[in-house]
Amino acid sequence: QLQRHLYGFTGVTLAKWLITLTIGFLVGMVAYVISSHQELVTIYKKREIMVALNNGYGLWIAFAGYCTFGISVVIFASSLVIFWTPAAAGGGVTLVMAYLNGNDVPDFFRASTLFAKIVGTLCTVSSGLPIGQEGPMVHIGGGIASSLTWMQSYLPRLKSEPDGKPILSPLRWLKPKSAVFAFHNDYDRREFISAGAAAGLAAAFGSPIGGVLFALEEASSFWSKKVMWRSLLATSIATLVLSWLHEKEFSFALPGTMSFHNLQPKFVLGDLPLFVITSAATGALGSMVNAVHAWLAKIRPSSDKKLARLAEAILVTFVIIVMMFVLAHNFGTCRLVPEEEEDIEEFWFQFTCPNMEEGPGYYNDLASLYLAVPRQTIQKLFKLGEGTAPAFAKTTLAVHCASWFIIFSLAYGIATPGGIFLPCMVVGSSCGALLGIFFKILFPNGDVQPGLHALIGATAMLASMFRTSISVVVIIVEGTGGVDFILPLILAVVISNWVAHHLHHASAYEIDLDNIGSITFLHNEPSHGMIPMTAEHIMAKGVKCLPEVVSVAEVKKILSTTKHNGFPVLRFTNETPSSGGPTTQGTFVGLILRHQMLLLLEKRQWIEVDYQDPIIPRPENDESEEFMQRVWKLDYFMRTYHHVHHPHRRYLSSRPEELEMFDLDKEELDLEAGQQKDDANGAVPEQNDAIPEQPNEETVQQNGDACAFNPQIRRIKALDLRPFMNSAPVTVREECSAQRVFIIFRTLGLRHLCVVDAYNRVVGMITRKDIAEAHRLSHHGVQSGNQGDNMYHRP
Amino acid sequence: QLQRHLYGFTGVTLAKWLITLTIGFLVGMVAYVISSHQELVTIYKKREIMVALNNGYGLWIAFAGYCTFGISVVIFASSLVIFWTPAAAGGGVTLVMAYLNGNDVPDFFRASTLFAKIVGTLCTVSSGLPIGQEGPMVHIGGGIASSLTWMQSYLPRLKSEPDGKPILSPLRWLKPKSAVFAFHNDYDRREFISAGAAAGLAAAFGSPIGGVLFALEEASSFWSKKVMWRSLLATSIATLVLSWLHEKEFSFALPGTMSFHNLQPKFVLGDLPLFVITSAATGALGSMVNAVHAWLAKIRPSSDKKLARLAEAILVTFVIIVMMFVLAHNFGTCRLVPEEEEDIEEFWFQFTCPNMEEGPGYYNDLASLYLAVPRQTIQKLFKLGEGTAPAFAKTTLAVHCASWFIIFSLAYGIATPGGIFLPCMVVGSSCGALLGIFFKILFPNGDVQPGLHALIGATAMLASMFRTSISVVVIIVEGTGGVDFILPLILAVVISNWVAHHLHHASAYEIDLDNIGSITFLHNEPSHGMIPMTAEHIMAKGVKCLPEVVSVAEVKKILSTTKHNGFPVLRFTNETPSSGGPTTQGTFVGLILRHQMLLLLEKRQWIEVDYQDPIIPRPENDESEEFMQRVWKLDYFMRTYHHVHHPHRRYLSSRPEELEMFDLDKEELDLEAGQQKDDANGAVPEQNDAIPEQPNEETVQQNGDACAFNPQIRRIKALDLRPFMNSAPVTVREECSAQRVFIIFRTLGLRHLCVVDAYNRVVGMITRKDIAEAHRLSHHGVQSGNQGDNMYHRP
Repeated sequence: QLQRHLYGFTGVTLAKWLITLTIGFLVGMVAYVISSHQELVTIYKKREIMVALNNGYGLWIAFAGYCTFGISVVIFASSLVIFWTPAAAGGGVTLVMAYLNGNDVPDFFRASTLFAKIVGTLCTVSSGLPIGQEGPMVHIGGGIASSLTWMQSYLPRLKSEPDGKPILSPLRWLKPKSAVFAFHNDYDRREFISAGAAAGLAAAFGSPIGGVLFALEEASSFWSKKVMWRSLLATSIATLVLSWLHEKEFSFALPGTMSFHNLQPKFVLGDLPLFVITSAATGALGSMVNAVHAWLAKIRPSSDKKLARLAEAILVTFVIIVMMFVLAHNFGTCRLVPEEEEDIEEFWFQFTCPNMEEGPGYYNDLASLYLAVPRQTIQKLFKLGEGTAPAFAKTTLAVHCASWFIIFSLAYGIATPGGIFLPCMVVGSSCGALLGIFFKILFPNGDVQPGLHALIGATAMLASMFRTSISVVVIIVEGTGGVDFILPLILAVVISNWVAHHLHHASAYEIDLDNIGSITFLHNEPSHGMIPMTAEHIMAKGVKCLPEVVSVAEVKKILSTTKHNGFPVLRFTNETPSSGGPTTQGTFVGLILRHQMLLLLEKRQWIEVDYQDPIIPRPENDESEEFMQRVWKLDYFMRTYHHVHHPHRRYLSSRPEELEMFDLDKEELDLEAGQQKDDANGAVPEQNDAIPEQPNEETVQQNGDACAFNPQIRRIKALDLRPFMNSAPVTVREECSAQRVFIIFRTLGLRHLCVVDAYNRVVGMITRKDIAEAHRLSHHGVQSGNQGDNMYHRP
Repeated sequence: QLQRHLYGFTGVTLAKWLITLTIGFLVGMVAYVISSHQELVTIYKKREIMVALNNGYGLWIAFAGYCTFGISVVIFASSLVIFWTPAAAGGGVTLVMAYLNGNDVPDFFRASTLFAKIVGTLCTVSSGLPIGQEGPMVHIGGGIASSLTWMQSYLPRLKSEPDGKPILSPLRWLKPKSAVFAFHNDYDRREFISAGAAAGLAAAFGSPIGGVLFALEEASSFWSKKVMWRSLLATSIATLVLSWLHEKEFSFALPGTMSFHNLQPKFVLGDLPLFVITSAATGALGSMVNAVHAWLAKIRPSSDKKLARLAEAILVTFVIIVMMFVLAHNFGTCRLVPEEEEDIEEFWFQFTCPNMEEGPGYYNDLASLYLAVPRQTIQKLFKLGEGTAPAFAKTTLAVHCASWFIIFSLAYGIATPGGIFLPCMVVGSSCGALLGIFFKILFPNGDVQPGLHALIGATAMLASMFRTSISVVVIIVEGTGGVDFILPLILAVVISNWVAHHLHHASAYEIDLDNIGSITFLHNEPSHGMIPMTAEHIMAKGVKCLPEVVSVAEVKKILSTTKHNGFPVLRFTNETPSSGGPTTQGTFVGLILRHQMLLLLEKRQWIEVDYQDPIIPRPENDESEEFMQRVWKLDYFMRTYHHVHHPHRRYLSSRPEELEMFDLDKEELDLEAGQQKDDANGAVPEQNDAIPEQPNEETVQQNGDACAFNPQIRRIKALDLRPFMNSAPVTVREECSAQRVFIIFRTLGLRHLCVVDAYNRVVGMITRKDIAEAHRLSHHGVQSGNQGDNMYHRP
């Protein structure tokens, strides 16, 4: 109720927009730092190789230097990840998606993770490995957004305040007094993290609209117009900052990270089958990468073998660098640098080719492809076929395409920060360019442009690996500036998705989720396989329930013996149960969460009740200032419970040990303890349990022992759950179709959904796990005995 | 159940994709026909004016000819709309949105409406009025999609088949035997109509991705990946066909309906405030257009005054043409046609300017702007400032901007088919160009490009009139090919939306919806004003309920006295009611729809029951072939009820007169009728109604008289609703927050949502009207007495 008054505050709105702008600005800065660092280091390394070769030290020395540098930075990045912040490994896009889907991803948005991710990415991209900065930028964007909104939590802890007043942080000029509510809830954090992730991708590709569409199509599970505006603003600012830093002057032009302006948008009908072939071939290649990755993930060392993971990273780096040098030396051809090129030092690499006295000199085409920044490799491949002689030999492209596929598959999954968007595009464009050159040989009279096939190949590869559609087209168009090629790009996306769908069922994200295992990801739409299922098939039975007023002993018992986070609250009426009528079993009246009860215990908010009549009639009009103040204060603490206790490791609060933090076994519980002792001493016969005066005994037993009271205790300490429980929980009937259940669960962002019968009695409970499991089973059509049991008879 | 087996059919999937391709193809063709027709007629008219002027007939004669032609075609188009197909009036985008939102829009997707829309648009765009073809293309796209999917319904009527087997249409090669299910449900139709609408917009602007995003952002209320793929395919094919027809050769290039390639993407920091000014000014202009339109809509003749509507259209056309001629003659300046231009005849118009012996000749700049196709006007404005001398004088632009604002406001709303997208862009670009020229004068040293300001103005205008964001940016980028201008365009969209939001609350669509009145549009997200509301505030009370087995007489009575479409079904247990306990009032067990009961009556599916024990225990295992066959057949007829009886006017089925179609008063009902007569003759005392043996009497009276049985009838004809009712309806509790109710209602696409208490007894019902009303009230914060009453105490 208190929270509801806050949305009108202009200060909050203003603070939100300022935070959005800041996110965009910082993301743009970080993207610039990473990409220019990568370029500088690459140029430096190539220059050192040439110095070594020109001074006659030979290729071995050059190789040793290059290799040492590469392995050193990989060791550093890898150690950061393995020994300090495991959450910073890999690209991170999948985990951003998982978080936005409603999962608790431990430590993922910590400041330390953010720091390790930035530093690690700086190292990895300068190592020469086929690893991009695009995925990490999505994580970094989300991390920056999270850090900005959570800054409050790194400052004074609310726990230290005995009177419950939150201390205002030094940032309070940004946050009006009560805005702390607004930024501590999950809803707002998701909004900012969506915007940050969009800004990260936008800055990585120089694609403001593409970033928003990526967040819409892939990353965000909960989407609204407000999120879209926020993302759009963040992506534009990030792109603007990047463009501005690149150009060294204030510029509104897109940074054009992959721009080329040399292809002509001239196609003929005969190109159509060629486009289809290229799209289908690279689409198949993309799903092959996924399949290989899924297979390799099984034989890679698991994440708990830390030294093995480190050794793997070193070995992979070594093998990759050896491959590059050996292949470049043996298969690369020496060609004359095209005269119109300006960036001689940046891309064209002489390597072991002979020196020339004057002119632009020779370059080794394969070495140039390998050792350049991936972005430049892609750019050069997109430009293929414009001039008179192609810049790369056919064998070079063939070797590059095949070797890069292997290199990429090896590197994809080692324990360093780094993404796969750009390396994937390198494979795609290399393969597409090769096909384009073949087509040009086959149809010498046609107007085949190999560069266009490279463009189509890169797009098709991205689309088939990630199963995206519109966002990848827009990203490519914005990144390359090639709006005239939009129709072939759409064709590529459609064909490659279709091909990939029939070859390998899972996208790269899904494989990652499978590997992680602990994430329950709710997809956007229920699968067709759910059509014959109902809520009854999905739900878990044997739900632990609580009465509206429950003894502290019971709460302690249920919290320390189960790991569930939500418990239905039942109302038992006092009338004599008639024969099997609907009133005997307790009506479902509300839902209480684990952390709410934990907080009530922590704050010692218990009351004393007479067990014979545990239902204290709560005065309907108890709107007294004092009572409401107390409830509001507790409500505030409940909302910020996770934030205060385990800000980045929410899962910890469902450990049984959590209770021990509150020292509940002290003298405070004496009343109950004393009575229990008395009861134990006094020879109360066991059979009293079956005394018929205890009206709900049978029922309570049916609902699990959670609701059982020891009838001999007359005065007990109890919690009154009614002011705090969610008194209007959404329920579904047993017969409700599973698809509908899925949609309700998904759209409302629920974590617990009670299944009731026609008389509103609880018959089951549906959680994220149940939903995800039902989706998985119905999707794949297989039902492995183990998991199936788990689903239907969850303990 | 039967339907569930069908999704696997590859034939259905194939048919669906073929239909999608056909939609794209046809939409592209229609778009080409309309746009080239417009260009040809415009050129012809201008040539005729020049012939008249050159032959010395004078301006009066030329004006008379031009005016006569314009008024003739407007009379034709207007008569079509007013006297034949009122649903074809205006742009139609709003009604497509309303349909996709779940409304029944009568006659909107009829074949006759489609025909009138195409013919009418051809007429209107050739009349010279400031009316575009873009809005109509959205409607036409939807209409083509609808006609292709509904083709079945124009063929044999299912009603004529006594054995219930649908006759297969000649199109059956497209549709496997049972596919008729798949295409008759609303879900599939919405999918195709979404795709058709997207294709229409894509073809109109030459913007495949923009079309999809438009459908996503604006038109479609229910969106899924499948719809996106379908739309993407349809838009690409439509664009491809258009591009192919325009180029006269197979081409993958975008048709580039507004393309220009002359602006340079060079901006400096100093441009930023100028961009902001232009965006804000045109944004304000856009919301001014909306305000003027909302005001004019009140004083225009209402749609039932047909002749007044026709007279209005004629008068508006006349006034507009007079304005154009007078202004062009008095304010236009004569300039030399730029030599580099190729399309001399298409755009540059000599009008009353002096002839030249040789060279490209003079043109009247204002007449050129007025009399050209709007698309070309926009193109020329976007190109402004590239050469040495601007093509239009400052006064010309000022006059054009101001006059076009008036002309546009007048024409926007007359009874002809035609849209406002392009005219709105003309105003915006004209205003932007004017500002750009002023800026150039103010900052002669700066590098101000008036054409860029025209581009920003057009975008800002569109954004502020329609309150769109990403889709308009993408449409402009694809239409103009100006991917380098994306950041200024985003800026324009953000600023103009912000300005417009603060000046006038409603977008053009919302004003249209207000004018139409009968549409209940559910927005995407609940408003903030709903936060303090609960389901109890929204729901309508006094719901008419039915028991599970209900007498035919009761059904007849309830159907002929109410207009409701959904009725809760209650279960009454037979036990003696205890004091106010939960069992006395009947538990909510299902929901039955009006048309389901109508069909049961039509097919005479009644049973005879003893009233003393009306609950027939339905055997749990009655899965006998015969019974299931009967239920499935009836189920099929229920699904196709609207389709068979009132395919385009669904609302008719809720008339009380609908019952008369079934001749229920014949001898078939004799049993009941006879008994009723007997009862009337036999002097049964009235006080028998209160006999305590009738267990549910009191309850039934509480639930409205609908459930009251006449206790004296021992054998009655009754309907058993249990096999047909929705036995797992979604319910919410009274205390449920209104926002949550909104989301459930909106996402599941419900039409009836029952509100229940903790014991699952019906306390209220929420329908689209209630939700929309609650949204409206909470949004505007005002609560007019009349509508407020309506909402809370709906009869």
